[in-house]
Amino acid sequence: MASKPIPVSPLAPKDGPRLPPIPGVEIAVGNSGTRYKGRADVLLMRFPKGTTVAGLLTQSSMPGAPVEWCRSVLPKGKARALVVNAGNANVFTGKAGRTAVEAVAKAAAAASGATAKEIMLASTGVIGQIMQHEKIAATVTTIAGQLAPDAWRYAAEAIRTTDTFAKVATAATTIDGVSVRINGIAKGSGMIAPDMATMLAFIATDAKLPAEVLQALLTKGNEQSFNCLTVDGDTSTSDTLLCFATGSAAHKPVASVGDKRLVHFTQALFALMANLAEQIARDGEGAKKLVTVNVTGAANAKAARRIALSIANSPLVKTAIAGEDANWGRIVMAVGKSGEKADRDKIVVSIGNQAVTRDGMIRPDYDEGKATQHLRQSEVQIGIDVGVGKGAAKVWTCDLTHGYIDINADYRS
Amino acid sequence: MASKPIPVSPLAPKDGPRLPPIPGVEIAVGNSGTRYKGRADVLLMRFPKGTTVAGLLTQSSMPGAPVEWCRSVLPKGKARALVVNAGNANVFTGKAGRTAVEAVAKAAAAASGATAKEIMLASTGVIGQIMQHEKIAATVTTIAGQLAPDAWRYAAEAIRTTDTFAKVATAATTIDGVSVRINGIAKGSGMIAPDMATMLAFIATDAKLPAEVLQALLTKGNEQSFNCLTVDGDTSTSDTLLCFATGSAAHKPVASVGDKRLVHFTQALFALMANLAEQIARDGEGAKKLVTVNVTGAANAKAARRIALSIANSPLVKTAIAGEDANWGRIVMAVGKSGEKADRDKIVVSIGNQAVTRDGMIRPDYDEGKATQHLRQSEVQIGIDVGVGKGAAKVWTCDLTHGYIDINADYRS
Repeated sequence: MASKPIPVSPLAPKDGPRLPPIPGVEIAVGNSGTRYKGRADVLLMRFPKGTTVAGLLTQSSMPGAPVEWCRSVLPKGKARALVVNAGNANVFTGKAGRTAVEAVAKAAAAASGATAKEIMLASTGVIGQIMQHEKIAATVTTIAGQLAPDAWRYAAEAIRTTDTFAKVATAATTIDGVSVRINGIAKGSGMIAPDMATMLAFIATDAKLPAEVLQALLTKGNEQSFNCLTVDGDTSTSDTLLCFATGSAAHKPVASVGDKRLVHFTQALFALMANLAEQIARDGEGAKKLVTVNVTGAANAKAARRIALSIANSPLVKTAIAGEDANWGRIVMAVGKSGEKADRDKIVVSIGNQAVTRDGMIRPDYDEGKATQHLRQSEVQIGIDVGVGKGAAKVWTCDLTHGYIDINADYRS
Repeated sequence: MASKPIPVSPLAPKDGPRLPPIPGVEIAVGNSGTRYKGRADVLLMRFPKGTTVAGLLTQSSMPGAPVEWCRSVLPKGKARALVVNAGNANVFTGKAGRTAVEAVAKAAAAASGATAKEIMLASTGVIGQIMQHEKIAATVTTIAGQLAPDAWRYAAEAIRTTDTFAKVATAATTIDGVSVRINGIAKGSGMIAPDMATMLAFIATDAKLPAEVLQALLTKGNEQSFNCLTVDGDTSTSDTLLCFATGSAAHKPVASVGDKRLVHFTQALFALMANLAEQIARDGEGAKKLVTVNVTGAANAKAARRIALSIANSPLVKTAIAGEDANWGRIVMAVGKSGEKADRDKIVVSIGNQAVTRDGMIRPDYDEGKATQHLRQSEVQIGIDVGVGKGAAKVWTCDLTHGYIDINADYRS
């Protein structure tokens, strides 16, 4: 926690939605007394019997103990509870880290009438400090007596670290004509980069879906959402995206991801994931501007994403945007360093809806005043057609400001 | 140029050496009236007949016109003059950029009794603005009447953009018992990342070396110097490293890079290149601390360099160092995101000369006070043994401070 209180991001959604209950999903939060004062820092979410689960985890070679735990229990595809704590990431904590996850899983299992292997875990916060797991486990046991279906916002609040606002999203859709609900919460504002960029995101639905189908949907949706997000290019050791499906909706079983009855649900799920990803960019540490980078004309979609991320991760591009300086040359530089094919004499850089370049140089009719006006807004659109193919990608990021330095030069003190 | 004057880096060498003349090399500088006021921004360096040249150029797919010019004339291995201008990079300037380099080369050729293809060019500054090449060419013609052998420091001053001090280095060595001199100048403080990291560096020697030998030496030295340097991970569109050998030293010809008579010269050249690279890190935009990252125990040297760069490029590591916060967990994170093999339970992170970790967690005897004390110094040593092999690498960088934002949020205004 920075010594100065961090003001709420100016990019925070003005009125986050109220999340309705998901039948069978119960939530409680509490304070563990480990790091944060005056706020909840432990989340317990309980699911009914038969709940399936899918997940994606950080690709870091230094994963936290909770990530390793989830990696070992996810293949069963079943979950009865989720425990998340904020303040200590339980990363690089050796044997003590493994002891901690086992103790917390055991407490949650006891509180859920389940086995430890049906408990999903995530931790976020400082790396390398031994977690006081007894306090987390005791909090889980205590709050298990306070579970309620209508506490989604509290859940989103409890998993924050440097986040300045709680990230929530909800969607109503149908499967085979039957109403289905999806709720999601996320946290993350620094150490955000693919793969994957979530820090933490948890989604629950009452849809009735086998774990394999849920996993396939989640993997595909992730490519268009959390994996298209960067704040600082630093990949977390704790990134965890989990999706729980309770199966209480009354639709007939859906056995495959290609089933046409999943079209609406897939759209709704992907939109919800993209919404949460964008919210994370909106809460990028020190962010004053939400930046969307649209790349077209790349060799393929993967190349487009790499070019977009090269721009979105460039400190020089991000500081120019912070300074509302239409220094489009830095965008060209970032395309050039991406390692992907681009035709210098054909690329079209756009700021807002104005094309800046043509024939490998600035357009004679380019109006810098108009570009600067666009950059003064809180939402900035950068476009690049790289002139070699049909690959396209969209990536979200934020500007790089003094606030990022303020927050990160003194995080632990 | 930032609106506020940028103070000289606190990491600037206290007393840069005076560079003696290199026989036959003549230097003049002047102001072109294109961008900077009250300082020289054009350098003309003239070489005697028979001078050989070798070079390395940016790998960006958006190279500037001077880079393309050098790429086309370097294979001849001969040079009679070098022209460098600061303030306009002549990058992404389309056909106008090509016209500009031809005009400047022609002016320098006329001033040197040479052909245009024996002229080397480099430009540094803002990207995407058409260069007023008539003014640069006229300046070259004017200052050609003022050439002098004893103006190396003026040369280093003239090629600066956001650099807060001129970077110079000199070495005296021998080839086959005959005294040989090497002088070098460099510029660069932002948009610095491999490959290659120089921005601009120019080296001259009176050694008598074929261009192929010079090229082989330069390429090898570059791997241990400019390619082990990062300020912000942004690769320039203008990176240029050139080495000129006048051949006026009286030693016998050396035909191959493996010749034992080159041992001393090679050592001196590589040390001079590493010295210039370190000076660039010392002048990193906003830098308050010089950071040296030493990686050992990697699978091979390339993996070691990637791990070192992953740490050196991490905004979270760099802001923690700026805040003098021994947040070593971020170093673990950066190793984890490098994509290179590392054994979490064997890696040893060190701050200064103190080992922080053992067995995948913090050492019980770790003294954070001592680590903090080390971070309070202006030169910081980060060490990581990744526990899988024998690969090693050393990389230089600097901390990420408010100064970087100040300089780059308003560079063009």
